[in-house]
Amino acid sequence: MFEAIELGRKVSKQTYKEQEPEIRTQLLEIQGLLKESEIPVFIIVSGVEGAGRGGVVNRLNEWMDTRGLQTHAFWDESDEERERPHLWRFWRRLAPRGTIGIMFGSWYTHPIIDHAFGTTSEDDFDQEMARIVELEHMLTQDKALIVKFWFHLSKKDQARRIEEDSGKYDDSDIQSVKKKFASHYNDFSRVSEVAIRMTDTGESPWHLIEATDERYRDLSVGRILIDSIKQRLSHHNAMCEPPKPIDTLPCEDATATVTILDKIDLSRALERDDYKKQLKKYQSRLRELCWRARSLKRSSVVVFEGWDAAGKGSAIRRITGAIDARLYRTISVAAPTDEELAHHYLWRFWRHIPQAGYVTLYDRSWYGRVLVERVEGFAHEHEWMRSYQEINDFEEQLFRHGTIVNKFWIHISEDEQLKRFKEREKVAWKQYKITDEDWRNREQWGAYKEAVNEMVTRTSTEGSRWHIIAGNDKKFARIEILKILCKSLEKSLEST
Amino acid sequence: MFEAIELGRKVSKQTYKEQEPEIRTQLLEIQGLLKESEIPVFIIVSGVEGAGRGGVVNRLNEWMDTRGLQTHAFWDESDEERERPHLWRFWRRLAPRGTIGIMFGSWYTHPIIDHAFGTTSEDDFDQEMARIVELEHMLTQDKALIVKFWFHLSKKDQARRIEEDSGKYDDSDIQSVKKKFASHYNDFSRVSEVAIRMTDTGESPWHLIEATDERYRDLSVGRILIDSIKQRLSHHNAMCEPPKPIDTLPCEDATATVTILDKIDLSRALERDDYKKQLKKYQSRLRELCWRARSLKRSSVVVFEGWDAAGKGSAIRRITGAIDARLYRTISVAAPTDEELAHHYLWRFWRHIPQAGYVTLYDRSWYGRVLVERVEGFAHEHEWMRSYQEINDFEEQLFRHGTIVNKFWIHISEDEQLKRFKEREKVAWKQYKITDEDWRNREQWGAYKEAVNEMVTRTSTEGSRWHIIAGNDKKFARIEILKILCKSLEKSLEST
Repeated sequence: MFEAIELGRKVSKQTYKEQEPEIRTQLLEIQGLLKESEIPVFIIVSGVEGAGRGGVVNRLNEWMDTRGLQTHAFWDESDEERERPHLWRFWRRLAPRGTIGIMFGSWYTHPIIDHAFGTTSEDDFDQEMARIVELEHMLTQDKALIVKFWFHLSKKDQARRIEEDSGKYDDSDIQSVKKKFASHYNDFSRVSEVAIRMTDTGESPWHLIEATDERYRDLSVGRILIDSIKQRLSHHNAMCEPPKPIDTLPCEDATATVTILDKIDLSRALERDDYKKQLKKYQSRLRELCWRARSLKRSSVVVFEGWDAAGKGSAIRRITGAIDARLYRTISVAAPTDEELAHHYLWRFWRHIPQAGYVTLYDRSWYGRVLVERVEGFAHEHEWMRSYQEINDFEEQLFRHGTIVNKFWIHISEDEQLKRFKEREKVAWKQYKITDEDWRNREQWGAYKEAVNEMVTRTSTEGSRWHIIAGNDKKFARIEILKILCKSLEKSLEST
Repeated sequence: MFEAIELGRKVSKQTYKEQEPEIRTQLLEIQGLLKESEIPVFIIVSGVEGAGRGGVVNRLNEWMDTRGLQTHAFWDESDEERERPHLWRFWRRLAPRGTIGIMFGSWYTHPIIDHAFGTTSEDDFDQEMARIVELEHMLTQDKALIVKFWFHLSKKDQARRIEEDSGKYDDSDIQSVKKKFASHYNDFSRVSEVAIRMTDTGESPWHLIEATDERYRDLSVGRILIDSIKQRLSHHNAMCEPPKPIDTLPCEDATATVTILDKIDLSRALERDDYKKQLKKYQSRLRELCWRARSLKRSSVVVFEGWDAAGKGSAIRRITGAIDARLYRTISVAAPTDEELAHHYLWRFWRHIPQAGYVTLYDRSWYGRVLVERVEGFAHEHEWMRSYQEINDFEEQLFRHGTIVNKFWIHISEDEQLKRFKEREKVAWKQYKITDEDWRNREQWGAYKEAVNEMVTRTSTEGSRWHIIAGNDKKFARIEILKILCKSLEKSLEST
């Protein structure tokens, strides 16, 4: 693949001088248009050592208006990053809509290096690439434009370049890293080719650029960037909501009248004394398990969804009451801030992913996308339909990282809800919990039931299971949740 | 001090049952009112080991609506935190306006522990306390309410409590830490008393609570919280902009007609050849210095301010062109996001403080507060007047942490600006740089001059000096800036 671009292309000083102003002007114009759009642009700067990626980054910073431009170098991982799924460090730096983010180093860097140095298997590498395709697809579906550059140098040119640069670094570590990379030129070349081929998709293609001549390199980058953004903008303007093919499994239960919720035995209950005894037992077990999880550096994510007044809050309090307050965090999902709206909807959940050894409890969650946003029509069908896959990918990343994921849907009957709503209206400190919206949601009971059924069907995976809890008796529900959590933690910690 | 509250106060189960609903109701009501206000509430939960601070945190989470409540436990520092000034970890977790943040562990924790264990001197400790008073004053001035709780146990009660709890922890580290703390009871007691006395201010007083009886403890917390927030809300409503006494040094130059800018010799210039030679020389020196700074883990903050069209952007590019793209970040200060508006105005600058070994370049900065916000009237006089002190404190923290701070004001004449504005209108890729606002700002030349003069006078400190650069000749200005930066880095790195 790479030989095909080793053509020794060059641009003269004169030509560069003639063409540069035009490129700058166009880039600035495009930045202006971009600002008005909902498109975030991610520029991925990759390639071989010595190809001048840093020079490209500097050039782009010189050409463009830095007010709509962010540059992030992904170099050493911090401990905060290491303690979370690999992609967290990229999510936390994603450029917001209407701006451009330059990524010097990207989600490609580590998989390629690791495989070139032989520390990962063929299978691991293939899976990693498949995940990148998924990620880029997801971002692109969310209006992002990803422009991927690969800067190439022949083996000979690389050796020469590294020799020339060797005086520039005061840091001997970096010099030796560079030399190490150069000595593995062929391995890198082979692995990079495979990576490029596997991730060269129609929606985010690779641009291979011969990097021997700086002027040629930079003008090419400028032109490709202009073309890519222009094309994306015109496409975006032509149809603001492109109908995307929905590529999901058929889900037979989706329109069924009998849903998974109907199979739940809502008559299950616990006596007060029994409840008190079990509460004490499981709370103390959970407390101990959370300490153990901390020393083993295993984190937990616990998601609570359920009907209004199902008792999510009080169940959460039975859990937090058991855990040391330093070990957990509760995230109550409220309306997104404007920074959150300027990103993919999963961004605001990635923000709160727990560090190794800690517990995050979500009072409502990313499932809002396929529940309230679906039922109320806040998200388009093609948006929430693709969310099942996106959510599964997200949770798989948590699972693979070792995070223990548990999801609860607390189920109650319509009658029970009505009873609780009326009760809430009577008790002073419960009144804040009942709003007009709750009454309106009640009218959508059927639609929610269907949505819940589909959600559970599509997103209950081995690493991240849904537990449907019979909630008409609050005491029963709380103990059930505590039991499940304890069991799940025990099982996961045993295998650590 | 503490003996005075060792009174063995208790609340019976019956009384607790009677009073709790009222407290919950009021807390929820208050949360509703708070949501509509611009007040952020910070609850500081401190006290001796074993006093049940975790229990209080859990109780508050149980009583209040968790949608407007965040809990942050400040426990181990991460490397990202260690590589920045000590207070960064608190700034990044400050609750936004209209919400409540519970801080389990706070800016008090480390200073008290360090001093009780004898690792810091009396002087260090006193300074630390003075800084806390400054910080709390600053936040309070920005509408925050800080409610500080200290939970006390007698030595005997503490020993008993720790013994009782010893079974609860799976983590033997934590047990031994607790015992270590208990064995230093008297040291802690003494240091804590001093800390409390030094930071017990009228605007954010301490509340000492006897923690022997859980019910007494929790009801007390609830009541104090209700009273404090109520009082703050009524005060807030009564006068939305309380006229704060302005406690600053007299600044004689503020209204002078001759300002510091008039002393700058704007005729200084560089010949093209000389410029090229020096550019090469200083850029390569800077490149090398930045690598050295990285290996020594010293970070830099470089601030660029100046008249419109003074050449900030092009000067920044001469710097970034010299530094490896992985080592620097440019922050162009734009309009704040809603998350940024929901915090103290310095919050958005704290966000971007560089990690150890890296460089952050600010294209405009926190000085906007005393420049554009002052001149255009976006900030009230009492707000921008107190900013000098706040900014000095902020930069002192950077300096003390070892960050190398340099600030440039690029000065040009009014005529030179006019010439450049006209030129910008002619060159296609420069047109984006000139807006109606720029023309409007020109009319305020005198007011800006006065503001600049006062800014430089009040905020040029030893650890963070202003450099006023003659900018009529861009070549001269760029070399001057590079020279100063190199010299500053050299000097600072020598002393590392």
